[in-house]
Amino acid sequence: MAPAYKLTYFDVTALGEPIRFLLSYGGIEFEDIRISHESWPALKSSTPFGQLPLLEHNGKVAYQSIAISRYVAKQVKLVGKDDWEDLEIDATVDTITDLRIKLAQYSFETDEKAKKEKEKSILNESLPFYLEKLDAQAKKNNGYFVGGHLTWVDLLFTASLDFINFMAKKDIIANSPNLQKVKQNVVKIPNIKAWLEKRPKDTLQ
Amino acid sequence: MAPAYKLTYFDVTALGEPIRFLLSYGGIEFEDIRISHESWPALKSSTPFGQLPLLEHNGKVAYQSIAISRYVAKQVKLVGKDDWEDLEIDATVDTITDLRIKLAQYSFETDEKAKKEKEKSILNESLPFYLEKLDAQAKKNNGYFVGGHLTWVDLLFTASLDFINFMAKKDIIANSPNLQKVKQNVVKIPNIKAWLEKRPKDTLQ
Repeated sequence: MAPAYKLTYFDVTALGEPIRFLLSYGGIEFEDIRISHESWPALKSSTPFGQLPLLEHNGKVAYQSIAISRYVAKQVKLVGKDDWEDLEIDATVDTITDLRIKLAQYSFETDEKAKKEKEKSILNESLPFYLEKLDAQAKKNNGYFVGGHLTWVDLLFTASLDFINFMAKKDIIANSPNLQKVKQNVVKIPNIKAWLEKRPKDTLQ
Repeated sequence: MAPAYKLTYFDVTALGEPIRFLLSYGGIEFEDIRISHESWPALKSSTPFGQLPLLEHNGKVAYQSIAISRYVAKQVKLVGKDDWEDLEIDATVDTITDLRIKLAQYSFETDEKAKKEKEKSILNESLPFYLEKLDAQAKKNNGYFVGGHLTWVDLLFTASLDFINFMAKKDIIANSPNLQKVKQNVVKIPNIKAWLEKRPKDTLQ
């Protein structure tokens, strides 16, 4: 029987990897479809908003990576213990997204002068600001972001590191001991470990 | 007794208004604290990530407008009927956010040449693309975005229109009959109507 879940994304980690982590965590078998940049234009117009990733489940198709991640988190029981914890998880996810978007604005800037300015405002100012706050949050929660226990934002953060580090051109958690703990708490999970060994090695941005 | 909910934001609609709509919809009394731009710098460093809005409830403080909106939506029962509908709501919310961020990149661009380019790529290309897709979605769902019934994304969209129109410098739904229906379905709700009559009139961006 074909797997019930089908994930379609490019052959990179980026916005697809949090979903791959979450499905793997839950032991959910999924088709890991990776679209080459050559075949993307032909597919693009058939997607809901011209974007990947897409998740197919029960014959229905969903888009938007964070929305998909939250859905899978519910299926694999990595949500908060109540509505307020879910709010804290969602706020942290949105903050990580804010940071990711800022870093993309720096990383993919093609104008040299603008890039120099963004290096100053984003790489040298925003990034340390976010890291200090997030590290303090992880410290308060004992190596997790919310509630002192594992939730989907821990997986999302860890799965996003390859892409974020690629954009920042460095290991962003090198000086953040508590964010390193978050990562350790995630990568030591047997199902995540198995996924990290199994996933394509040459497409880690 | 003081209201159990306290919303802190600037004296504009923007990212605060979806939360104000949701609280009003549920008939939840809330303190509507509006920070002037003069008093903001003194407050900024005491906020979780240097940003507003903030929601206080039961002595706890939350940040990130979309996360707060989702939390309030649960309290006032404007969520989907199952996890998949919640996924569709979340995806639409994130798409509206994508559009809002794009329009902000155009609207607040200070470099004249870059602004001209963004007028072309964002105002004349992205905006019509999003509006066509969103209007088709609202048509399919009979004047709502998801499931053929009222959910929090309908309120979020309608509450965001003042800010979005301000950035786009036009009524973006002028030629989108089904998005107009979404708006009508929201503003005709007695509690929303009452809020629209009661809210400050001079701060509608």
